[in-house]
Parts: sequence; structure tokens; C-alpha cells
Amino acid sequence: MIVILKENPEKHQLDNLLSWIERQGVTAHISHGIHQTVMGLVGDTAKIDIDLLCQMEIVETVKRVQEPFKNANRKFHPLDTVIKVNDAVIGGGGMTVIAGPCSVESEEQIITVARSVKASGATLLRGGAFKPRTSPYAFQGLREEGIKLLLEAKKDTGLPIVTEIMDLSQLDLFDEVDVIQVGARNMQNFELLKQLGHLNKPILLKRGLANTYQELLMSAEYIMAFGNENVILCERGVRTFENYTRNTLDISAIPSLKTLSHLPIVIDPSHAAGIARFVSPLSLAAVAAGADGLIIEVHNDPTHALCDGMQSLTMPEFDKLMKKINIIKEAEMSVKEL
Amino acid sequence: MIVILKENPEKHQLDNLLSWIERQGVTAHISHGIHQTVMGLVGDTAKIDIDLLCQMEIVETVKRVQEPFKNANRKFHPLDTVIKVNDAVIGGGGMTVIAGPCSVESEEQIITVARSVKASGATLLRGGAFKPRTSPYAFQGLREEGIKLLLEAKKDTGLPIVTEIMDLSQLDLFDEVDVIQVGARNMQNFELLKQLGHLNKPILLKRGLANTYQELLMSAEYIMAFGNENVILCERGVRTFENYTRNTLDISAIPSLKTLSHLPIVIDPSHAAGIARFVSPLSLAAVAAGADGLIIEVHNDPTHALCDGMQSLTMPEFDKLMKKINIIKEAEMSVKEL
Amino acid sequence: MIVILKENPEKHQLDNLLSWIERQGVTAHISHGIHQTVMGLVGDTAKIDIDLLCQMEIVETVKRVQEPFKNANRKFHPLDTVIKVNDAVIGGGGMTVIAGPCSVESEEQIITVARSVKASGATLLRGGAFKPRTSPYAFQGLREEGIKLLLEAKKDTGLPIVTEIMDLSQLDLFDEVDVIQVGARNMQNFELLKQLGHLNKPILLKRGLANTYQELLMSAEYIMAFGNENVILCERGVRTFENYTRNTLDISAIPSLKTLSHLPIVIDPSHAAGIARFVSPLSLAAVAAGADGLIIEVHNDPTHALCDGMQSLTMPEFDKLMKKINIIKEAEMSVKEL
Amino acid sequence: MIVILKENPEKHQLDNLLSWIERQGVTAHISHGIHQTVMGLVGDTAKIDIDLLCQMEIVETVKRVQEPFKNANRKFHPLDTVIKVNDAVIGGGGMTVIAGPCSVESEEQIITVARSVKASGATLLRGGAFKPRTSPYAFQGLREEGIKLLLEAKKDTGLPIVTEIMDLSQLDLFDEVDVIQVGARNMQNFELLKQLGHLNKPILLKRGLANTYQELLMSAEYIMAFGNENVILCERGVRTFENYTRNTLDISAIPSLKTLSHLPIVIDPSHAAGIARFVSPLSLAAVAAGADGLIIEVHNDPTHALCDGMQSLTMPEFDKLMKKINIIKEAEMSVKEL
Repeated sequence: MIVILKENPEKHQLDNLLSWIERQGVTAHISHGIHQTVMGLVGDTAKIDIDLLCQMEIVETVKRVQEPFKNANRKFHPLDTVIKVNDAVIGGGGMTVIAGPCSVESEEQIITVARSVKASGATLLRGGAFKPRTSPYAFQGLREEGIKLLLEAKKDTGLPIVTEIMDLSQLDLFDEVDVIQVGARNMQNFELLKQLGHLNKPILLKRGLANTYQELLMSAEYIMAFGNENVILCERGVRTFENYTRNTLDISAIPSLKTLSHLPIVIDPSHAAGIARFVSPLSLAAVAAGADGLIIEVHNDPTHALCDGMQSLTMPEFDKLMKKINIIKEAEMSVKEL
Repeated sequence: MIVILKENPEKHQLDNLLSWIERQGVTAHISHGIHQTVMGLVGDTAKIDIDLLCQMEIVETVKRVQEPFKNANRKFHPLDTVIKVNDAVIGGGGMTVIAGPCSVESEEQIITVARSVKASGATLLRGGAFKPRTSPYAFQGLREEGIKLLLEAKKDTGLPIVTEIMDLSQLDLFDEVDVIQVGARNMQNFELLKQLGHLNKPILLKRGLANTYQELLMSAEYIMAFGNENVILCERGVRTFENYTRNTLDISAIPSLKTLSHLPIVIDPSHAAGIARFVSPLSLAAVAAGADGLIIEVHNDPTHALCDGMQSLTMPEFDKLMKKINIIKEAEMSVKEL
Repeated sequence: MIVILKENPEKHQLDNLLSWIERQGVTAHISHGIHQTVMGLVGDTAKIDIDLLCQMEIVETVKRVQEPFKNANRKFHPLDTVIKVNDAVIGGGGMTVIAGPCSVESEEQIITVARSVKASGATLLRGGAFKPRTSPYAFQGLREEGIKLLLEAKKDTGLPIVTEIMDLSQLDLFDEVDVIQVGARNMQNFELLKQLGHLNKPILLKRGLANTYQELLMSAEYIMAFGNENVILCERGVRTFENYTRNTLDISAIPSLKTLSHLPIVIDPSHAAGIARFVSPLSLAAVAAGADGLIIEVHNDPTHALCDGMQSLTMPEFDKLMKKINIIKEAEMSVKEL
Repeated sequence: MIVILKENPEKHQLDNLLSWIERQGVTAHISHGIHQTVMGLVGDTAKIDIDLLCQMEIVETVKRVQEPFKNANRKFHPLDTVIKVNDAVIGGGGMTVIAGPCSVESEEQIITVARSVKASGATLLRGGAFKPRTSPYAFQGLREEGIKLLLEAKKDTGLPIVTEIMDLSQLDLFDEVDVIQVGARNMQNFELLKQLGHLNKPILLKRGLANTYQELLMSAEYIMAFGNENVILCERGVRTFENYTRNTLDISAIPSLKTLSHLPIVIDPSHAAGIARFVSPLSLAAVAAGADGLIIEVHNDPTHALCDGMQSLTMPEFDKLMKKINIIKEAEMSVKEL
């Protein structure tokens, strides 16, 4: 951490600052320039509250060198985290596909889709029970009933289930859910993250629409700091000025997050594009770039879906996509051996 | 609402679409072009789920003409909403100043600041008890204790209090809070908004860092749709590529939101700028542009604040700013009479 | 094109508008609603000046249905454009790799790199002679001398050359250049685009850092409207809030631009990432997503490059990347046959 | 400038780096930490090419402390630059209003508008002769003829004129133009900036739609580095996710640019908002925040303007706005005396 001081600090101010720094358990190295004095703080600076430092009278600006997250940081955990969910494995060089409808709508629908995506090669089932919708007048999901139907589909197919929590008050309903999803709009719902940190169940944490990698990893850090190390990062598109696609898939998130963190990274091409026809090229791009998994919307009847049908694949389309994914994944594995 | 159809729809598809539209209680006017068929839907389209429409097989794209919010819409409520909080009034042509520290830190601190800002002319007291912090290692607020201290300051000064809720589980603690603030990161925490819709207490709703006016008004609509019409909109800066200021104050939000909605609009120059020295010019700009209020951070000792001291004014600085605000407000009132 | 009128237009205003519309050679279909009158304009609306229409007194808003570009539009040219540059071919299902240093620095450097990238499989040579630099104090390129050195490298290796023009006054120097590059910052330098429209030489047009697909295609339209149909689109990353990578590669640009346009699309992973280590995963992602080509920075000695060395591959790294590209390209071709 | 080294640099690498730094005329102070070695470079670092430094093998990252611009930097020129254009003065505490039509359309139009805005209190006349339009099919301005008409309006009214250059090839036509405007899309047309740096005529430099303050000031630096110190900065709105207004006026640019630079700053509310009705509140906000000037579109007949009529004020509206501006400016001057 670099601290740049204002010109001509007084001695007692400098002494105060130095003693504060010492109390944080780190060491300061000082360079006196003609116009500017610069300090390098050395030690475990991850837990220093940068805001406190910034507002000291004699401090002009502070720049971090070390990342402000520790548990999620690859520097301190060089090996990939591998998360097991029953028979499914996320992370560590494989390609795990999570598939299912945007919303759970009926028993028939969810079981039909679950059987079909399993046959095509998906190893986890997704489905929305609680749906965050921009409009209070839009369909809000089957809620408690939706969770029940997902559990029935799990019983029928053996696929572990992934579904989104929207508020802590719903937590009791998630007892038998295998992976709890935190949606993009809740990425910085810190009270929710803290409580999920007390579980020992995998959390699929989606990146917010205008959030940085560091902010995503700080949210993962919230969960991990409270004890739950089973965090799966999910890139689902960011907001840009381009409105032709719903959001813009940040494909660089794959190598970037893999450099910064040891956590697995899953790509959601369905929400990123918002257009079914683009799910295939984006999925293949993610596989080629080294993603650990994909989460893909599949519906038995997209044109009558209650939500986001535009971006859902039909079951035959998904089956074909799985074949393509396998071809590119095999190529990607040959590439890694070069 | 304009519905643009794909080329050459089949008759039964068109009939299905028309009967679905009729069931929504609106009327379709059709224009057949050479390449394209276009429908104008006329009637109350605010509650039509645009996603459902988009995914019909024969629909190419849908464009809204009418806004998707009703309760918050000035078209249906031409007169300004005026919100009374004890003796304070927000909306309707005045200038209401809400002031106080970023975080409540101690009884002495909050009472000192409360007395001072009241003497300078603030009519509501702000102070954070629950603090949303990016890092789990940063100070998280005094929480329940913070609310108690705010209530003591209220008893001491008579100023109604404004403080932020972060999760529904905290709601019981907000019984005596006068105005509940929803932070920018919670603007689309829909479960929270729904519950706040069941109160009859003013809600100060902050715009998210990357959200549009329409999304802000849809969040207001969530609260209002459940019965609580006391919503105060707050612009606190949006994320842009400029990092010199913490965020970029969107001054156009004032005339824009006043055109779109009847709800009062309050500006938060402290969080927008993140730099104390810029709070004054931004406040004066907001007054000149016709804002209904300002929410300003004031601390008795900014260089030792536990959070966001960099952007806090000292009490004398705030006192001077109030004098400036009064001068510009008076000028703005002369301007309105032209 | 949809024209939404203000409430209660007067008859003579409506007549004026209708006669203006007729003069544009298109037909208006009118739907009268209770609150709103809506017109659908049918015919060739691409050349209607939307601004003129917007400012008519009785017009509330105008929404385009048809894209405002024609020459670049796939609707009117369903087949892929294939551009031949000597022996190299860009577009139509292949994978063309353009490689070379950010800046031309010396005869030895450019010839060394040219021979090496040719041996590895690149079919065009890139190299900057005129360099757009944010700072007037940074190296501005060898300029005229740089073009000469590129032509020597072309003579030596037979590789056609791609290099950037920064201003019309440089045009004479580009006589023997095979492909003229328009940089991201010049994407809307309309006077330059017009003049390039009078050449019959391929133009590699880079997307601006904050520009949409439509704006990119409108800039292509400028070139094409003046007669030059040899436009290669290039995605090189857009500006987002993420600063870990220099820009954010918009991988969805590949299927999106291929849907909207028949022009070939080339990806520049070097400028997008700004980090050499990420060039490989981004290149492979682009190949898997169906790009027509890649433009990659390769330097004989990146740590002593005069510009952008951080993002340049070494010659052995590029050689290895070409092998990877070939593996993924082969897989992508199998995928297409499914 | 702070240079952070990779772990465990070898001695000869460190020596190479130190000798390179010395050759730049600055001094390095080194702090050795446990994990990281950090250097503070002290001296005139503005002209160091940060890219060169970044790509040294042992350098992990470089952070600037000092701004990379010098001529435009307030640190080295504490007093406000005041630019005189005939009788008009821009900078130094006044409020200068530049007004006129988006495009020059005819002699009658430009003279009518010029006389009217002069009578209302504008002291410079603006008008577009060369118009940057997104579509090649839209009106491109009267070009050479437009400049002639502006000069006639100047002769008639005595108002100095401001008009935009789009390409260096047009420069000869600008001999008698008083202030040359560089549009937002040309802010980083570095060849153009260099040539304008050889004139001694004021340049009104508009901020690009997605550019930072530093990038704007680096473009000003291009002009100033070649000798022309008469640069007027212009904020005209930045691109954000909000599309209700055309762009988002960044009001914080006023105090920010005044802190960073001594150059005058002018606000363009017409282009920022794109909506005539919002020009007044945004203008008043700019005055209250301390802008040096405003540039406002005024048309004799906005509903028949050939370009951007939607955002133009009528002449009576402008006259009324000038009265409002004067009221707020007077208040702002009282505020400054507090």
C-alpha cells in the first residue's frame, strides 16, 4: 500500500500517522521527494480500512498494491478450488453444465426439462423459484412452491439443484437446495452474504451488472470470511452502451478471475446475450477461454415461458449445443497440452 | 406499446397474438407494410409483461411508448407530491436540508452534530447505523446501538431522523425512525421494497450506481404498488469512466425525474463527489436546477471519522454552506417568477 | 419507422407532417389511440433524417424499426463479403491472422518479426507507423519512415501490410499499403471516412471504445456510400468499469455483427486485454465464436518495445498460439457441420 | 511516480532499471518490503513514457502520483487563464455566453439569430458550418458557404464567431474565424490538435463522450505543447446508461477541472441534454457551480431547423434564459464573497 502525503506535513502529524500505521501491524518505508513524500506500507495490508487512511489530514492519496481480499486470493491459495455437489464437480479443469428453465412453472415442465438436460449431459439443474423482476406487475415466480417442484425434479433425476435466494427470510426453504445462487442485483447485499457465509453449502455468486472483478471478489470474501469457502463465481454480462444484446459478456473475466483467484468460474451466456441464437457462440467462446462451467437456460416451450423465453434454448437445441461444447472442450484440452 | 412482427406471420399465429392482446384489456391497431407488420397497442399497457410479448414466435421486437410505471407517473398525478415529516416538508418548491454524519459513532458525536446542523438550518438528521461496506474487514456501523443513539439525538433536538435499512430482518428496529433510507446497492432488492410498501412511513430511495431513471421509478413503483406513496427519490451519483470524483452527479436527474414523476427529488452531493471540497458547488448547482432537497454529510471531526470522512464537511463548513444555499435558493425563486 | 405523436395534434399540423413524409418517398399508416396517435412509416426509411422528424412540433418520439444503414446491412446483402488481399482472404469461414509489432522501430525489427510471423502462419503483416498516443510527450511512431520499412518487409516476405492512417494529409504515403487501418479514436472522423470511400483498397475499421454496433456500421456505411465496399470490421475492446484489463473484449460482437452485416469481422485481443498473457485465451474464444480473423501484436523483444510491449507476444509465444488457433479452428469447423 | 517491482528481481535487472530511470532525469527512492519492492520516482515525471516503464521485465505495475500534463496543470500555473476574443472575455470569474444555431442554414437565418442573441446578452456567436453526422445520408452542413455566412453575421453584429473544424484540410477556411471548436469526436484527433497548437487563436476543445478529465487535459496539452496556450475546455455531456437525456451533463467537471487546470471551462447544456426544456435548469446549475461560460443553441425556427432542432431554444426563450442566468450569476457572486 502506497501512501502519498500532502506537501510539507508537520512533524506531529507525521508522527501521528506513523503511530497509527504501526498499530495496524504493518511497517512504513518513507521516501522524501522535493515536492512529495511517499510511504510504502509493508505487511498484511488487506485488512487496513483505506477510507480511514485517506481522510488523515496529511494524506493526499492512497493506492493499494496488494489486493484487499485474502481468502479469495490466488496468491495465498495457489491451487484451484474444486467444488463437489453430489456427483457433479465444478473447477479444476473440467466443464460442468448447469441447465434448466428460467422459472419453474409446473411439475410437468420442470421434470420434462430436467430429464432432457440430464440426457444431454447437464450435471446440475437450474430453475428460478424466487424471481427478481424490475416491475412489480410481472410474474414473481412460484416461490415456495417452486422450490418444492425443483426438489421433486431432483428426486426424479438425481440432478442436484441450483436456485436463487432473494432475501434472508427465505433461507429456511433452501435447506435441501444444493447450490444457492445470489443474483447480480444482490451481489452487494452484504447482510445476505454474511449469513450465507455461515452455511457449508456452495454459493453461486453472480457478478453485478456494473461491478468490477475486485468488487465481485470482495463479495466472495464476505462469504468466505464467515467460514464458507465454497464459492462459485459467475460472469453473466455487464452493462455497456451496447443494447443490441441485453448485456455484454465479459469473456476476459475467465483468465482475469483465474489469475486473481482460485475459485471456479462459470459463465451464463443466456442472461448475457438475452437472445437464444447467441447462446451457442458465447458458450463455445467460454469453453475455449477456459471456463469451469456454463449455466444455460433451457425450456420445453420457450415461446410460452412465463419469463425470459427469448433467451431460452429448446431441449433439442440444448442437446445439439452439448455436442458442440464437447467438441470444443476436447480441443481445449489438446491446446492445454501444448 | 408498439409491436413489430416478423415477416409473413401465419394467420393462426396472428390470431393467437390478437386474442392474447385482447385478454390484456388493450386494443391492437395493425399497419401492414411491404416488409413489416406493425401493431399499436392502445389502452393501459403499463401492466403488460413485455417479456411475454417479446417471446411470441411472430414478434420481432416490442417498444414501449407509455412508461411501465403508474403510481409514480406524473401523467396520472400531475401535482407534486409533498411529504411531511413532523415539521419538515419535502417537495413542492422548498429546499429541505438533511444533514449528519456518515456513521453514528457515539452519543456525544451524534448529539454534537445534530445540534450544530439544526442551528445552521437543517431540518432532518441523517446518520448511518447499518453501513454497507465493500470489505468485510471495514467498520460495519454500530447497528442496533446506532439507531438508539439517533433516537436520543432526535429527542434532544427534535429533528426527525433518516437512516438506512440493509435487510428486512432489521425492520423492527426502525419503528421510531422517521424516514427509512434504501441504499443504492439495495435499489433493486425487491423483497425489501415490497415490505416497505406496507408501511406508511417515508422511504428515501437512492438510485443505483448504474441504474436508469426508469429503473429507479420502477423501484418506487414497487413500494407504491403495495400502498406506501411516501417515496422520496435520491440521486447520489452514477458510475462513469471518470474516477477523479467517486461518482458522477447526474444533475439532469432533477428536471428529468420532475418531468417523469410527481415524487420529490433530493440530491446527495457528498456521496456523488466523495470529496468535501466539491460538496458546495454541487449543492448550489442542485438548488439552481430545482432540487427539493439535499442530503449532506457533516462530521464534528472528519479526519477521525470511522467512515467516509473525506467527503464530510466540518460543522463550520456546513454552516457556511447553508448561507450559500439560502442565497442561491432565493435567486432560484426569483427565477421561477420570471 | 414508428412516429408517436403528441396528444391532440391540430389538423393542419398533421397534414404538414403527412405531406413531408410523402416527399420522403415512404407511406404512413396511422393508428389513433385514446391518448396517442401512432404512425408506421413503410418503405425505404434508411435515408430519412430522424432528427428532422423528431423536431416537428407534433412529434413526441420516433423509433426506428429498420436499421439506418443499407450498404452494410445483411438484409440487403445476405451473402458474406469476402475480401482478398493478394493471397490472403478475409471472410467467408476461414481464419486469417494478421500479426506484427505495435510500432515499426527499425528495418531489422520489422523484417525479423515479419519473417517469423509468416513462418508461424500469419498471412498479413501489421505494424504502426503513425501512432495515436494520449500524451504529446510519448513516442509518435516513425511515420513516413515507418511506412517505408513496412514496404521493405513486404518485399522481403511477400506479406501484404496493414497500417493505420491518422489524418487525410498522410494519404499519399499509403499508396502501396494493402489495407488501411482506421483506429478506434478515428471511427467517427467522418471526413477521413468519406475520402477512404473513394479508394478501392480494403479498410480495417476499428470500433470506438464507447461506440455501439450501429455506430460502427454507420461508419462502415460512410465508406461504402462513397463506393468502397471493402470494409473489414474490427472489435478491439470497449471501455467498461473494469480496469484490470485495458478494455473489455466484446465477444458478442462476433455473432451480433454477423447477424446485422455481411462484412467480415476481425478481433484484436492484444489491444482489448492490454496484457500479453490474456491474448491466447481471448484469441481462442474469438475463433470458437466464429470470428473471420485475428490481429495480434508480436514483437521480437517486447521488454524493449517503444510502445505497448506489455501486450505483445514474443515470436515463440505467437508460434505456439498459432498451433492452438489451428486446433480450435478445426474443432469449430466440425461444430459447424453438426 | 510509484514503481512496484515483481518479487525477487535480479541485481542486474534492478541496475538496468535504475540506470534507465537516471537517464530520464529523475531520482529513485527504494523501499524493500518482505514481498514487494517499491520505488518512488521524484522529479519531473510528466514526460516519462509510462508504457515503456510498465514493460520492463521486473516491473509489476506503475502508478502516477503527478499528473502527466504540465502546461495545462494548475500546479505549475496557479492563476486562472483568461482568454480575450475581441471584446469578449472567457475565464477569471465572469460568465460568457456563446449562442447561435446548431447549423448555419442561410444568411437571413444566421443574421437574425446573431442580432437577437446579441441583444439578449450573448458575446460570441456559434454556428456549425461543417457538421459531424453519424449518418452519411444526413445534412452535412453548408461547409465553406457556412463559414462565409458566419463572417457576414460577424460583420453585421460585431460578435466574434466560434465554429467547428472537422479536418486539417479545412484549416485555410478558418483564417478569420475567432475561436476554432474541436468536437467531442475529434478530441483525440492528435494530428489535428498538433496543427492547432501552431496557431495563436483560441481553441474550444470539447470533451469526448467517454473520456476522462485527464484525457481531456492531455488533449489540451497537445495543443499547448506546440505553443498555443489559448485553450477553452468544454464539457458537453458524457455517455452513460441513461438514455432519457441524450448525454449526461457532468456538472462536477466544473470544480474538478478548475482544481486540476487553470484553463477556463464552458458548459454546453444543449448537446448534453438534447432537450430544449432542460437547457435552462442545466445552465443555471452550471452558473451556480462556477462555470466560466455557456454555449447554447438558439434557432429562429427550431421546428424547421436542419439539425438538432429538438435541443434549440427559440430566440424569446433564450432572452428569458439570459435574464435567469444573470440572476443566478449575481447570487453566485454574493456566494463567493462569503
